[in-house]
Amino acid sequence: MTLPKALAFDVFGTVVDWRTSIARESAGFLAQIGLGDRNPSAFADAWRAQYIAAMIGMRKSGREFVPLDVLHREMLEASLRDWGVDPAGCDEALLADWNRAWHRLDPWPDAVEGLTRLKARFPVVTLSNGNVALLLAMARQGGLPWDAILGAEVSGFYKPDPRAYLRTAELLQLAPQELCLVAAHHGDLAAARASGLMCAYVDRPDEYGGAPAPDAHHEQRWEWSSTSLTDLADQLGC
Amino acid sequence: MTLPKALAFDVFGTVVDWRTSIARESAGFLAQIGLGDRNPSAFADAWRAQYIAAMIGMRKSGREFVPLDVLHREMLEASLRDWGVDPAGCDEALLADWNRAWHRLDPWPDAVEGLTRLKARFPVVTLSNGNVALLLAMARQGGLPWDAILGAEVSGFYKPDPRAYLRTAELLQLAPQELCLVAAHHGDLAAARASGLMCAYVDRPDEYGGAPAPDAHHEQRWEWSSTSLTDLADQLGC
Repeated sequence: MTLPKALAFDVFGTVVDWRTSIARESAGFLAQIGLGDRNPSAFADAWRAQYIAAMIGMRKSGREFVPLDVLHREMLEASLRDWGVDPAGCDEALLADWNRAWHRLDPWPDAVEGLTRLKARFPVVTLSNGNVALLLAMARQGGLPWDAILGAEVSGFYKPDPRAYLRTAELLQLAPQELCLVAAHHGDLAAARASGLMCAYVDRPDEYGGAPAPDAHHEQRWEWSSTSLTDLADQLGC
Repeated sequence: MTLPKALAFDVFGTVVDWRTSIARESAGFLAQIGLGDRNPSAFADAWRAQYIAAMIGMRKSGREFVPLDVLHREMLEASLRDWGVDPAGCDEALLADWNRAWHRLDPWPDAVEGLTRLKARFPVVTLSNGNVALLLAMARQGGLPWDAILGAEVSGFYKPDPRAYLRTAELLQLAPQELCLVAAHHGDLAAARASGLMCAYVDRPDEYGGAPAPDAHHEQRWEWSSTSLTDLADQLGC
């Protein structure tokens, strides 16, 4: 197997455990708005469930690119409305801090060691729909040793738009087939492969709290398939 | 003095010593094209001398943005012609490798320690006209611990265009006055100040081999003035 010249990582779900972090933070915020008896994991799931629809909506609507923080805030307000809360009645500082919970997601237990080992041999960059400020704050808090923060905000296009993948390769001065996307999501990998990238899957069975992944039907035989970033480092000889 | 919320660094001359590195590499390449008796430091100076003119030319001409690697190559070929060599007669692989000397610049002796100390307290990002691939290769080779690689290629505008500074602040979700440019060049700092940024000067008397800086007339009283990045770390309490 030819090795890639760089590794580009999906982040939410692949490198960090969004569900546990968002549920833990949402427990506190829900209590502050009088919903302390509701299930914070269900709130995390509801918030995230709007994500894929938002990405597709961005592309179909032709809406001008906005950073993911803006979309997360819209999804937060929609989730609150679905739960019977008018966000206009909530304290603005509380909503802003709640939204920034996405800046504070915890890495999966293997992520820092895995990235550090992989970085010794390959450039490691983000290829995430997260915006730069979000990914930078997350990296500083979690100790994620990125070589560069690239992806949607830098390209101006959200995955799975091919231009998000191709622009990342272009910025690295690589042909698409020299770049490998590392992701826990078969849908993301399928879009990367369609643009010519190599693909490494990381299994994260707990991403949805044990529920099936919404994009399982995109599963294919990927160049690499791993159970963690340290396992991937083993497989790539790092 | 109010402290900034992040530090954005000029790179060529401020963090890395372009002149010594380019002269050392050019000595070998000049020998390969039969100019081994010429002064490689003078060639480095000639190559770099076209830089400011190229930046201004990009802006005035309305030319579509191209990565700095492309401009460096044009400047290399122009320098060769000035030295009586037709670049069309040179080996393409040699020219490409010579141009990539800018990816391999050595840090000033204080740079890695200074950045590492500053990073403990502040996000440290590039605000350089260098392209992502160039800055990433340089960081990996020299051990420069950037939190993020931003600047011209990400904004689509070359310094001293105000949009290069303002877009970097925007990507960090900071007001311009919350961001501090760290640079060895008074002209760069003056443009940053005009866009509202804070400014930290780093004196690099050897940048031009002891010759005066071409932008000395832009000197002002900056928020901080330092003799090295470790000195700046001392002044910022890092």
